[in-house]
Amino acid sequence: MCGIVGIYSDKDMSKELYYSLYSIQHRGQESCGMAISDGENINYKKDMGLVGDVFKENELSSLKGNMGIGHVRYSTAGGSHLANCQPLVGRCRKRKLALAHNGNLVNANYLRDMLEEDGYMFQANSDTEVILYILARYYKGDIVESLKITMDYIKGAYSLVIMGEDELVAVRDPNGFRPLILGKKGNEYIVASETCAIDILGGEVIRDVEPGEIIVIKDGEMKSYLYSENYKSVKRSCIFEHIYFARNDATIDNVNAYDFRVKCGEMLAKNDDTKADIVVPVPDSGWAGAIGYANLANIPIREGLVKNRYVGRTFIKPTQEEREIGVKIKLNPLSSVVKGKSIVLVDDSIVRGTTSKLIIKSLRDAGAGEIHLRITSPPVKYSCYYGIDTPRRSNLIASENSVEEIREYIGCDSLEFLDIEAMIEATENKATFCKACFDGDYPVKKIDKEEPLSC
Amino acid sequence: MCGIVGIYSDKDMSKELYYSLYSIQHRGQESCGMAISDGENINYKKDMGLVGDVFKENELSSLKGNMGIGHVRYSTAGGSHLANCQPLVGRCRKRKLALAHNGNLVNANYLRDMLEEDGYMFQANSDTEVILYILARYYKGDIVESLKITMDYIKGAYSLVIMGEDELVAVRDPNGFRPLILGKKGNEYIVASETCAIDILGGEVIRDVEPGEIIVIKDGEMKSYLYSENYKSVKRSCIFEHIYFARNDATIDNVNAYDFRVKCGEMLAKNDDTKADIVVPVPDSGWAGAIGYANLANIPIREGLVKNRYVGRTFIKPTQEEREIGVKIKLNPLSSVVKGKSIVLVDDSIVRGTTSKLIIKSLRDAGAGEIHLRITSPPVKYSCYYGIDTPRRSNLIASENSVEEIREYIGCDSLEFLDIEAMIEATENKATFCKACFDGDYPVKKIDKEEPLSC
Amino acid sequence: MCGIVGIYSDKDMSKELYYSLYSIQHRGQESCGMAISDGENINYKKDMGLVGDVFKENELSSLKGNMGIGHVRYSTAGGSHLANCQPLVGRCRKRKLALAHNGNLVNANYLRDMLEEDGYMFQANSDTEVILYILARYYKGDIVESLKITMDYIKGAYSLVIMGEDELVAVRDPNGFRPLILGKKGNEYIVASETCAIDILGGEVIRDVEPGEIIVIKDGEMKSYLYSENYKSVKRSCIFEHIYFARNDATIDNVNAYDFRVKCGEMLAKNDDTKADIVVPVPDSGWAGAIGYANLANIPIREGLVKNRYVGRTFIKPTQEEREIGVKIKLNPLSSVVKGKSIVLVDDSIVRGTTSKLIIKSLRDAGAGEIHLRITSPPVKYSCYYGIDTPRRSNLIASENSVEEIREYIGCDSLEFLDIEAMIEATENKATFCKACFDGDYPVKKIDKEEPLSC
Amino acid sequence: MCGIVGIYSDKDMSKELYYSLYSIQHRGQESCGMAISDGENINYKKDMGLVGDVFKENELSSLKGNMGIGHVRYSTAGGSHLANCQPLVGRCRKRKLALAHNGNLVNANYLRDMLEEDGYMFQANSDTEVILYILARYYKGDIVESLKITMDYIKGAYSLVIMGEDELVAVRDPNGFRPLILGKKGNEYIVASETCAIDILGGEVIRDVEPGEIIVIKDGEMKSYLYSENYKSVKRSCIFEHIYFARNDATIDNVNAYDFRVKCGEMLAKNDDTKADIVVPVPDSGWAGAIGYANLANIPIREGLVKNRYVGRTFIKPTQEEREIGVKIKLNPLSSVVKGKSIVLVDDSIVRGTTSKLIIKSLRDAGAGEIHLRITSPPVKYSCYYGIDTPRRSNLIASENSVEEIREYIGCDSLEFLDIEAMIEATENKATFCKACFDGDYPVKKIDKEEPLSC
Repeated sequence: MCGIVGIYSDKDMSKELYYSLYSIQHRGQESCGMAISDGENINYKKDMGLVGDVFKENELSSLKGNMGIGHVRYSTAGGSHLANCQPLVGRCRKRKLALAHNGNLVNANYLRDMLEEDGYMFQANSDTEVILYILARYYKGDIVESLKITMDYIKGAYSLVIMGEDELVAVRDPNGFRPLILGKKGNEYIVASETCAIDILGGEVIRDVEPGEIIVIKDGEMKSYLYSENYKSVKRSCIFEHIYFARNDATIDNVNAYDFRVKCGEMLAKNDDTKADIVVPVPDSGWAGAIGYANLANIPIREGLVKNRYVGRTFIKPTQEEREIGVKIKLNPLSSVVKGKSIVLVDDSIVRGTTSKLIIKSLRDAGAGEIHLRITSPPVKYSCYYGIDTPRRSNLIASENSVEEIREYIGCDSLEFLDIEAMIEATENKATFCKACFDGDYPVKKIDKEEPLSC
Repeated sequence: MCGIVGIYSDKDMSKELYYSLYSIQHRGQESCGMAISDGENINYKKDMGLVGDVFKENELSSLKGNMGIGHVRYSTAGGSHLANCQPLVGRCRKRKLALAHNGNLVNANYLRDMLEEDGYMFQANSDTEVILYILARYYKGDIVESLKITMDYIKGAYSLVIMGEDELVAVRDPNGFRPLILGKKGNEYIVASETCAIDILGGEVIRDVEPGEIIVIKDGEMKSYLYSENYKSVKRSCIFEHIYFARNDATIDNVNAYDFRVKCGEMLAKNDDTKADIVVPVPDSGWAGAIGYANLANIPIREGLVKNRYVGRTFIKPTQEEREIGVKIKLNPLSSVVKGKSIVLVDDSIVRGTTSKLIIKSLRDAGAGEIHLRITSPPVKYSCYYGIDTPRRSNLIASENSVEEIREYIGCDSLEFLDIEAMIEATENKATFCKACFDGDYPVKKIDKEEPLSC
Repeated sequence: MCGIVGIYSDKDMSKELYYSLYSIQHRGQESCGMAISDGENINYKKDMGLVGDVFKENELSSLKGNMGIGHVRYSTAGGSHLANCQPLVGRCRKRKLALAHNGNLVNANYLRDMLEEDGYMFQANSDTEVILYILARYYKGDIVESLKITMDYIKGAYSLVIMGEDELVAVRDPNGFRPLILGKKGNEYIVASETCAIDILGGEVIRDVEPGEIIVIKDGEMKSYLYSENYKSVKRSCIFEHIYFARNDATIDNVNAYDFRVKCGEMLAKNDDTKADIVVPVPDSGWAGAIGYANLANIPIREGLVKNRYVGRTFIKPTQEEREIGVKIKLNPLSSVVKGKSIVLVDDSIVRGTTSKLIIKSLRDAGAGEIHLRITSPPVKYSCYYGIDTPRRSNLIASENSVEEIREYIGCDSLEFLDIEAMIEATENKATFCKACFDGDYPVKKIDKEEPLSC
Repeated sequence: MCGIVGIYSDKDMSKELYYSLYSIQHRGQESCGMAISDGENINYKKDMGLVGDVFKENELSSLKGNMGIGHVRYSTAGGSHLANCQPLVGRCRKRKLALAHNGNLVNANYLRDMLEEDGYMFQANSDTEVILYILARYYKGDIVESLKITMDYIKGAYSLVIMGEDELVAVRDPNGFRPLILGKKGNEYIVASETCAIDILGGEVIRDVEPGEIIVIKDGEMKSYLYSENYKSVKRSCIFEHIYFARNDATIDNVNAYDFRVKCGEMLAKNDDTKADIVVPVPDSGWAGAIGYANLANIPIREGLVKNRYVGRTFIKPTQEEREIGVKIKLNPLSSVVKGKSIVLVDDSIVRGTTSKLIIKSLRDAGAGEIHLRITSPPVKYSCYYGIDTPRRSNLIASENSVEEIREYIGCDSLEFLDIEAMIEATENKATFCKACFDGDYPVKKIDKEEPLSC
């Protein structure tokens, strides 16, 4: 997963870009970068690591310019390499371009092979480079025209911010899989993966970039173009952004993540007459659902698991024998809360099931009584081709196991998932969603047979 | 503030010490260190920075030994210097000693002057060095005897772990200001500032080290000594540990921090008939109190403020004009939750009042209606001499302002604090406390006139 | 300037590559890199900095494979950027390629424009990327055929090592401007910019790669191809390698650098009847010439200037007022040697003349009497287009000043250069040379009007 | 070994101290540090590493003050630890002191035991801390009186720079083992281990600090005190400084290192009628002697060994099988020079003999004919107790082997050392020397039985 930001301003804006990237750091911690145009040149810095570590004050002040794009990148298995850091910056027909991408193409390998056949040399290992190369191939000065051609080629999920020498461009794929929000602050335009990147600057959210929309900001003016008259874009906003990935304060395609999460908890409680002493959220992602559940079920909520605020940082991995330490360093059960209590434990989702299993065990060790695990989303049965870093299907516990089999593996006393209909009801139908990870109904077919390239 | 750990084992234990320190990282982020005895030598490493950054796998494996002590240190104004990192390690009368300290002496300057008069050379700028030098002066082989003499000299708050070449020693001052917990895991003894450092290793908490107690672990045996027959130790456990500093899972002097925090919220709600739509905690420290309040007041709890998980890491400071960014990067109001709502906002304490003021403003900007601020502790009116890093009295907003004046400054619609009696009631009288920061009743008089040394 | 190495072995060879690169570190200190093929994948690491700093033991051992190429890069003004580090690694038509380059093209901008016109996207700012892209365009499996086409396009100076998935290729441009030496050690082939990279491994030097030669090592066999039947390659070996750039132990195109340097000193002394007390070399590059001069002139040689061994490392630049410190930190005059003495000061070349001026002043301050500066090469009057980092013509002191004017500027009592004929005589005509920097006779015309790209 | 500098100025001087330390970097590469007094406080920074790496521009500018001392420290086996970095800084009787030391005491263990008996706690592992503690014990405001008492206690080699809050003090032990030079630049005083640290600043050398002299610079005035009326100081200047350690441009106790080195080469040639084609120096330390030898013997000097300028930096150690690489990376034989030639190889000293053996082998492999090794100093037969890091006696090849046995081990055709008388003659009797490493005549008896502490 990744996060992107673009800022078009009338003054130096690298520090604003820094704060925006900092605010969407949760969308990717592996690497980050920014590219800034001073009207003449595009200067950039990118490196492995967090925004706060990669950019130092003196470097920011040396990245001067009124327009810039930035990127944070999630750690994925194969592609942890400096060459895959974004934004990608290059020149073609004497014009400089920079591009940052969130999403995953379903035909990147196919397109790369095609371009390689034509003699193109790829230097990274990412579908972003594929997009950049196609764009470059057709870019002769009119960015909108060349983007339309590019969008004919590329299939799948892509939210893009692109920077030419005098224009900032924002693009969302025809299904709008990944979020992209447009904001404004005085004369300044901001496009970003999440609203918080606009909020942090004191800007105002205008609206979502629409599926298939190309927004160009140039000479202080914003213009909107449609990818194609012929292609009817159908919004397939990723429901997993709302379930887990986006921050609580994100409003994507009119659905507020927090409201949705609380609602999912309520929906789950509605038909559940489990008796329990307390509701315990799995921090941090289980909180909103747990609040919804607790309120509706009228069971008091208690923090039965304490999260170490420093986990996620550098950490020496425990050996196999020390595996329990690995869980406890992240989540320590609060025995004074759970001892002798029957518990409704609320989490947002189950992917592999391994963490849930270890949490249940540590709660039991701390003296918990009955543990009823409630998941505020349906079972994840299918891999995502559009940028969420779910594992291969075979590693998804729900792909081949019934709910009862999962419960047995995890070791809880009862287990309930939210069903797909209830989940959609919780969105109040404010948008249409991609929920392929739950029902396998992929809005865009996967074309590549190979492993996907890094996003 | 600081955190300390000592481990006495029958096998290599540096990695265990690492996990323990990692778990109490919240007690100090400025520097950390560990000293390990292999029976012959004491090897150590200490440096500025977090546990996860200072210690790398190859270094841990080169710190071999069955016994060790560790320290995490909080950032304090004057003393950010490598020389102040702990543990301090030295040799005296051909015997090696290492010492780590949590707390603050009230007569460190006085004692340092005395020792300097006798020709001692101080190389750091901490009261820990004062303790070490006095201990060394009287240490001729019997650690307990020399500690008794040392404890006659030093006044104030100190929890210590000390390592000789074949013994691990834990000491708590006669008032027991700062916590110190004893645990066991098989043949291994663990002493630590908080229970989580024992939990993380799968150990069992035995009990608190008692005020004025000296515990010596040697040859696999634990022995307990009393500092003095004549001196009647009176427990004055720091109530601020329970209010704010300790982790939710800490049980100190029989009081569980989380239960206490929830209870404080309940106590506050009991006599409060404020009508509001939602209860909003100030994350993370306001959560427990908010849950207590919400439950008792029967008002739904909602997350109206989103905390950036990455704040606390390296971060370029906003300039004066960007001050609002500084608050928003930490806490972004969730407008979908707060817009048009009347709110009970719950926080654990008010020190300077500046952050509260900015939070209120950002909630108002996000559309909140009435904001009723509820603080689950009494007004902080006095500075702490015993190791909590409260500012000078003149910077404590409650030292010279009435509750109404504070309310006006902060800009909320109403403001209530928990009163001292209710707070003590919330402890269920399981211990006796130092609450000098609220009532100025200092159990040990401050002797030094100068600024305190670093702890 | 740069240095390159390629190794084809039957065992893991990354450590050998490391030592080879270490031995040619004098050819470039800005950045370095290596790419290793394990038969399946090409793994690589490259970064700014010295070989000893960039590669650590654990990284070397993770770069596994039997074949690899490496590069060290000199600091040039414009192009200090991670993106310009070599080797460049990419894939085209599903085949991986890696390439490292020493030299400078005279038509890189022209070719880049041409490729950009065809829709290629350039991501670095180097002529090496231009070579790689052309090679990729025509590479359909037969590396020799595609290289022949590539060599039809690219003009100027290039010594290349290229790695496909199962073959190592070495190429020298049709004029052989830059050195490239072939060596062998058992079954292992080594190609490198200088003989020391072969010596260090205990290998044996076989011969120079010939101008216009393409050497392919595959399946343990070495084959040689000619770039073109029609094109008559004429060797124009860079004389400046022998004067300054190469190490004393280099033998390039049959000329040994050290012998040549001593001989140049002798040639200079032959017609010089200057009376002086001592000969003083400017360390380190003036030593060989000074020895030749001193022997023939029968004047004792003495070290009148002490070089700080640590200069070249990180160093805080002196301000303008501290400029003299800047020279003295590098070269301190040895007053006990020079006081009251008349001196023949020997250096290998004068480029800008600024350093010579400061050295003369510091010798005078140390009490030196007459100072006769003798330069063991002719005046540098023309810029190099083939990879030596000489400044623009206008900054070459000899481009617009007579010897007498230079002498006056520098402040010495007399000044003599070696003339071009004598310099060539010193090579014993073992090869034919490019001496364009002295006489402006450029073997290959410069085509680009713009500033050259980074090499 | 170590190097020290002290500067007393009337303006900010941290950058001058930086350049001075940079110029004596050859005296110690393990760690470095500086302490600067701004009249009120002593601020300092010290760390492992080279001067150029430890001090960055912004740190230097934050070390403000008119007076400061600095230190570079050599790598010694046992004591590589941050705690041993100098200057040591502390406070005693409310007065701050900083101290830097070059040399080694012969009774540091004895004194430390004595102080420990009195209850002192040692935190480092160096004899410098012993000096500081004794000084502190007796320091009640009069630095000269307390130094006189301190000097009654400490025995052995010590050159010291000490900084109180308003005075800079320089001390040389009563034998003057280690150098200490006094210089002046305008109103500024500089004391340093070598003249180059004064030269670099454009200062003027005044004279050596005398054995047993205490120089105090305060209120802009310099005063000189004698350690004791009763004790007759006898100069025993370390001859090994002149042979190897000091830079060529050092003049210590009136003897210029370079002149001495050349003279030693001449003395060696005087009675040597070896026929050879060329004289080859072992770079860099053999150069001066080789020049002296070549001139007198009338044999041309040639560089038969090429030194890699980058060795000494970070470098991955070759394995046992790669041992020859280890030598070649440092010194590559220049076969064009040595092939078929009979050689006089000149080096400054033989300690263990292992490097000489490997050099001889590599020259033979490169085709050299007869190799006559000439050493411009006598055989090193005894360990140094005064600060030169020679190994234990048993590792000195000359301690138990005859010259013929050494020759056989090393593998040269003939071997000659300079004899002691000739060496002294080469000093022109300008001073009296400690030459204990050659003749075992130790001016000060070793008192400690244990391994010496770090200097």
